[in-house]
Amino acid sequence: MPYSTPAPPLGVGMVGYAFMGAAHSQGWRTVGRAYDLPLTPVMAAVCGRDRSRVEAAADRLGWAAAETDWRALIARDDVSLVDICTPGDSHAEIAIAALEAGKHVLCEKPLANTVEEAEAMTAAAIAARRRGQLAMVGFNYRRVPALALARQLIAEGRLGTLRHVRASYLQDWAADPAMPLAWRLRKEKAGSGALGDLGAHIVDIAQHLSGELLVGVSAQTETFVKERPLPEGEAGQVGAVTVDDAAVFSGRLASGALASFEVSRFAAGRKNQLRVEVNGSDGSLAFDLERLNELEFHDNTLPDAEGGFRRILVTEADHPYLEGWWPPGHGLGYEHTFTHQARDLVHAIAENAQPEPTFADGLQVQRVLAAVEESAEKNAVHTPIPVPAPE
Amino acid sequence: MPYSTPAPPLGVGMVGYAFMGAAHSQGWRTVGRAYDLPLTPVMAAVCGRDRSRVEAAADRLGWAAAETDWRALIARDDVSLVDICTPGDSHAEIAIAALEAGKHVLCEKPLANTVEEAEAMTAAAIAARRRGQLAMVGFNYRRVPALALARQLIAEGRLGTLRHVRASYLQDWAADPAMPLAWRLRKEKAGSGALGDLGAHIVDIAQHLSGELLVGVSAQTETFVKERPLPEGEAGQVGAVTVDDAAVFSGRLASGALASFEVSRFAAGRKNQLRVEVNGSDGSLAFDLERLNELEFHDNTLPDAEGGFRRILVTEADHPYLEGWWPPGHGLGYEHTFTHQARDLVHAIAENAQPEPTFADGLQVQRVLAAVEESAEKNAVHTPIPVPAPE
Amino acid sequence: MPYSTPAPPLGVGMVGYAFMGAAHSQGWRTVGRAYDLPLTPVMAAVCGRDRSRVEAAADRLGWAAAETDWRALIARDDVSLVDICTPGDSHAEIAIAALEAGKHVLCEKPLANTVEEAEAMTAAAIAARRRGQLAMVGFNYRRVPALALARQLIAEGRLGTLRHVRASYLQDWAADPAMPLAWRLRKEKAGSGALGDLGAHIVDIAQHLSGELLVGVSAQTETFVKERPLPEGEAGQVGAVTVDDAAVFSGRLASGALASFEVSRFAAGRKNQLRVEVNGSDGSLAFDLERLNELEFHDNTLPDAEGGFRRILVTEADHPYLEGWWPPGHGLGYEHTFTHQARDLVHAIAENAQPEPTFADGLQVQRVLAAVEESAEKNAVHTPIPVPAPE
Amino acid sequence: MPYSTPAPPLGVGMVGYAFMGAAHSQGWRTVGRAYDLPLTPVMAAVCGRDRSRVEAAADRLGWAAAETDWRALIARDDVSLVDICTPGDSHAEIAIAALEAGKHVLCEKPLANTVEEAEAMTAAAIAARRRGQLAMVGFNYRRVPALALARQLIAEGRLGTLRHVRASYLQDWAADPAMPLAWRLRKEKAGSGALGDLGAHIVDIAQHLSGELLVGVSAQTETFVKERPLPEGEAGQVGAVTVDDAAVFSGRLASGALASFEVSRFAAGRKNQLRVEVNGSDGSLAFDLERLNELEFHDNTLPDAEGGFRRILVTEADHPYLEGWWPPGHGLGYEHTFTHQARDLVHAIAENAQPEPTFADGLQVQRVLAAVEESAEKNAVHTPIPVPAPE
Repeated sequence: MPYSTPAPPLGVGMVGYAFMGAAHSQGWRTVGRAYDLPLTPVMAAVCGRDRSRVEAAADRLGWAAAETDWRALIARDDVSLVDICTPGDSHAEIAIAALEAGKHVLCEKPLANTVEEAEAMTAAAIAARRRGQLAMVGFNYRRVPALALARQLIAEGRLGTLRHVRASYLQDWAADPAMPLAWRLRKEKAGSGALGDLGAHIVDIAQHLSGELLVGVSAQTETFVKERPLPEGEAGQVGAVTVDDAAVFSGRLASGALASFEVSRFAAGRKNQLRVEVNGSDGSLAFDLERLNELEFHDNTLPDAEGGFRRILVTEADHPYLEGWWPPGHGLGYEHTFTHQARDLVHAIAENAQPEPTFADGLQVQRVLAAVEESAEKNAVHTPIPVPAPE
Repeated sequence: MPYSTPAPPLGVGMVGYAFMGAAHSQGWRTVGRAYDLPLTPVMAAVCGRDRSRVEAAADRLGWAAAETDWRALIARDDVSLVDICTPGDSHAEIAIAALEAGKHVLCEKPLANTVEEAEAMTAAAIAARRRGQLAMVGFNYRRVPALALARQLIAEGRLGTLRHVRASYLQDWAADPAMPLAWRLRKEKAGSGALGDLGAHIVDIAQHLSGELLVGVSAQTETFVKERPLPEGEAGQVGAVTVDDAAVFSGRLASGALASFEVSRFAAGRKNQLRVEVNGSDGSLAFDLERLNELEFHDNTLPDAEGGFRRILVTEADHPYLEGWWPPGHGLGYEHTFTHQARDLVHAIAENAQPEPTFADGLQVQRVLAAVEESAEKNAVHTPIPVPAPE
Repeated sequence: MPYSTPAPPLGVGMVGYAFMGAAHSQGWRTVGRAYDLPLTPVMAAVCGRDRSRVEAAADRLGWAAAETDWRALIARDDVSLVDICTPGDSHAEIAIAALEAGKHVLCEKPLANTVEEAEAMTAAAIAARRRGQLAMVGFNYRRVPALALARQLIAEGRLGTLRHVRASYLQDWAADPAMPLAWRLRKEKAGSGALGDLGAHIVDIAQHLSGELLVGVSAQTETFVKERPLPEGEAGQVGAVTVDDAAVFSGRLASGALASFEVSRFAAGRKNQLRVEVNGSDGSLAFDLERLNELEFHDNTLPDAEGGFRRILVTEADHPYLEGWWPPGHGLGYEHTFTHQARDLVHAIAENAQPEPTFADGLQVQRVLAAVEESAEKNAVHTPIPVPAPE
Repeated sequence: MPYSTPAPPLGVGMVGYAFMGAAHSQGWRTVGRAYDLPLTPVMAAVCGRDRSRVEAAADRLGWAAAETDWRALIARDDVSLVDICTPGDSHAEIAIAALEAGKHVLCEKPLANTVEEAEAMTAAAIAARRRGQLAMVGFNYRRVPALALARQLIAEGRLGTLRHVRASYLQDWAADPAMPLAWRLRKEKAGSGALGDLGAHIVDIAQHLSGELLVGVSAQTETFVKERPLPEGEAGQVGAVTVDDAAVFSGRLASGALASFEVSRFAAGRKNQLRVEVNGSDGSLAFDLERLNELEFHDNTLPDAEGGFRRILVTEADHPYLEGWWPPGHGLGYEHTFTHQARDLVHAIAENAQPEPTFADGLQVQRVLAAVEESAEKNAVHTPIPVPAPE
């Protein structure tokens, strides 16, 4: 076994315990069972505003203690890493405070609700890095084994010169106009709609897979159902939907490849369909999150008569992240993107190496989303995206 | 048998005998074998500039005579219908002359290379209609049985309120930069590149399936390989590629539904992949030309626990156009889109009914393509599309 | 053009004009349009018992004349090739008479309804071969381009040592017990049920792809619905179904590979699903007739991390039979198996070369089917299949 | 929350910690995080022969203590449920001892290596049931949500009268003849080869989905590679493979439906492909373990023109087992079949209700496998399977 037994502990404190909190908890509970780790994650405490609910969550999700004030969580001696699973509007305040308190930070995506917040967070992360604290943003889909393999193949040059990235993320839960006005449909809480929720993922994936940044976008957004019943209102009372239901945008990567994007909560029958396809001069890759254990690869250097998209079942021992799992063909579920994220972050902390995606990566995604919104407001005119100076 | 035997003849003369000419000839040869028709198509003559080649083509494709001047073809007494299969730059002249000579016209897509030509053709068609001549443009994919079924389901309201049309048409034959500069890559001959060739099809399909017109678009186009070897030049000589290799555009339908489009000749591994998906409040449809006998249908009115995209094999006797073919499950090929087109045109002529798609439909597609090009030149800004006044 | 123009004629006479007659006629009409041929097929005459119906069929299907006596058809001077599309019970008599009259013969599958008839036909074919007449049996699926490519890859050794052939052919048209007792469900007319109709195809495909013969089988057959309404009887009158509705059998190829087979007319939702998969030490192939333009190929010699079934779209110019057709990605339909069959037979006749599948191949399939029936009657006990002595 | 907090503990002791032990441990660790349970599983102790290795496993897998003698494990006061994850040859002894010691038992499949052992275990389970102990066999695939949904649909009568069950389980890890002679290829250790390992699963699934027992089988088995290198022998030393590499068998269910089965470790490219299809008069179902979150359902009662296999993504909140998991479209992995198994067993124990599959179910599978082996030895002759008298 490569690491001393027992490995030193890494105290984790988590803020928020809803969907993402449950998913992150699963990652922390599982990571040491699947992988040999240089540090042993200890689930020290979880934080939420309502005492009885956070205590029940701690019990259910496996946290040793519960806090009701995130400042108290950050202050705990047994917490070295703060894992932020709250809605986007609180990310900046918590993350900056945690970094300034000398803690490592894992922050759920989107990094923030505004570019300004994301810039402040990124500055804080850079400052903290000099002090030895690490910050990472939780674009978990980078760690679907099939997408990690896709990144590998592209980085190895197997696709040649990239020509197209084509990504869509389609859901359908808002398709029924009778669905009430949930907080996710209100801008003051959610920041944006399908764009921030789904678009953030595919923008990150497009930039990560290609290894390039988007330099500009043209966009349209739409709110199909403009008023909805109030969740707790009287019969007949309605409120305005203030976020987008769908967005279509396209742009160019730094190399000149074309990138197209589409997100929607109104694509009936598409439950969680994140699709991405990359076409290059020497090959193509295609992925669908609804079949997450598969990657399709077309090797364009083979003879035409033998060519075709090949369905690689990404469950072999030498596929990314698979050394911790089951024999070939025994597929993994969605949740282990969080287990893999935890693994990589634990290694980065043990080795004092910068984990990816960085806050700067998260900021860059926010800049894309902001440019999308700006373009959509300006008749879709091409809107440049500020690209960071090379380090 | 519903029609008198033998049905009266319908003399057909075709101009052009390359890929499209071969496909149309197949349609004319086959249509009377598969369907009972009110008129019997007679393949009177085919026209091309080179006598020996057009005579060989006549022999091979089944035309009784060969002409080297399209004016002579139009003038023949035994030709009542002129079928135009030449490149787009000659469509207007031939079609208008044929209509003015009192002939029916079937014109390959795109209707013309410019909006101006398409407008003149449409005016000629309207004038000819009053005299009893009919004009039709050859968007053959409307007559893939699966897409005809899709149109039926949408027209019956099975998808409810439409929210999204998402269409792409991807090929890869230009992906190799060493491929020579064919005429299809030169604007003066081809008018445009992937946009006119592939984009015309998916714009027509999107408007046809939805029953709505696009009211504006935002677009980017790209020429990835800007110079190519001259086909007959000396080693090392190159020429400029003057058409687009790919285009991405999006817009809104009259009802407010979002429509997104992508075409490319650089999508390695995609040979002829025309995909279209339509999402509505009550259901969704998806189609892929590489599996042309299948239509996927999600009925959103079923209980969630039973929902899912259903693969309808569109080979049942009561599916569109299938009454002329084989038992269930015995799939059809690409070529019979032309057989079905011939069938519907023969019926329209016999009944003096306007066949679809009309020249006005073809003109409207040209307007969309022109708006795409205009938007692409103006930083993707949203560009409105003139919509015809209701009749 | 490789052949003299015009190529000498090859007079064809066809017996029977139902489903198979229509499909063969399509092949004869089309073959010279798609391919350069050394002989020009001339559709001289079609034969059926009812004069008015056979004349209508001649007109519809493109035959120059009609006969009501197959002996008269055979006797015609303008008929050099007799194409037999009748039910199996008349194959032997017609084929033997035609061969003895000095004609070439194409005979629909199954070769005959009994092994004895098939033996007599094979003997007649061998005798005729010495006189210069050729005989071929119409297992058309060998000429689906994807299956022809599969055969090529196996013959080249790309699959290594074969281990498994797994074939099924599923339909569902008999699933409804209320369907009347058609002639195809009566042994005296049809010989057998799903076994002879569907099983013959997959036995031939298994032997053809593998290049090996089955040496024995174990089998079960079943008639699920034992009585059905008489088609023209009074309400309530029923008759016995005397053929199998389904069969399951397995055996070994000469090399020791395992072969498994299943056929049914009761597989609800499977319209015409002929599936075959071959597994070898170096690779595997999979095919589904409902997606007939595709072949799936797993190359087991690639690294595990890159392995996977590759969907080859069998529409490239260098794929079998594709030189006569459309550009890549423009799929073919079921019917062109008959066009390809016609092509190969015309070449064989012009070159006086034995076309395949031979009558001996058809006989061998009959022996397998007979062994299946024998095994099914004897509690599934393994039943050897007589294998012809090597020539 | 429906249960008192905290729920009373249920002490679990596990024997064996290899692949299955790791999978079961995952289930025990996770079940209380995903579901509200009436008892709280406590992972008391794990047992293995090698002290240092079992202690490392306890640490890695989450067990509080380690034992090196399974009798000691059984004797522990803090163990109420014994979970047996050893190879099949030790199942009977451990299970019977545990039941006689008053413990509940969960036993991995196959229940035993012989029918005799399975009978003794079943008798012990029946006796224990009267004393309040429960026994369950671990056919985990019953608890893939898609297969649980399949069972529901069949039990509700949605498929009408069953006609066919068609199951295969294909892997390829033994395809390379150079692979050494592992213990799984030796009869004295493994009992049988692909038959017991893979065949047991699909026989159970066939009987479970249909709700019927197999009444007889006809079978062939094959060992393709008869000698292999000894794992620790000198170069060139080989030993005999004494188990089957593949098996093909078929039979009838009690109702007369046909059932066909195929298993192999030589199907190149098929990593873990358990496929099952059921055809009935009113519909069909199809499943593939390599896409375990999907169930295909053809509703044969819909109009033909709308029919087709529907891909149900089995991730909706009202699908079986999904109430504990993620939002729609967020797929589960293989491992949660064990989580679901643990959930159902905990409920059964709390309610003193018989969990399924019972030892009698496991015995019946053994009887089928024994009949397969007997038939294979007797030239595939149909071999009846003793069916238990109705209770």
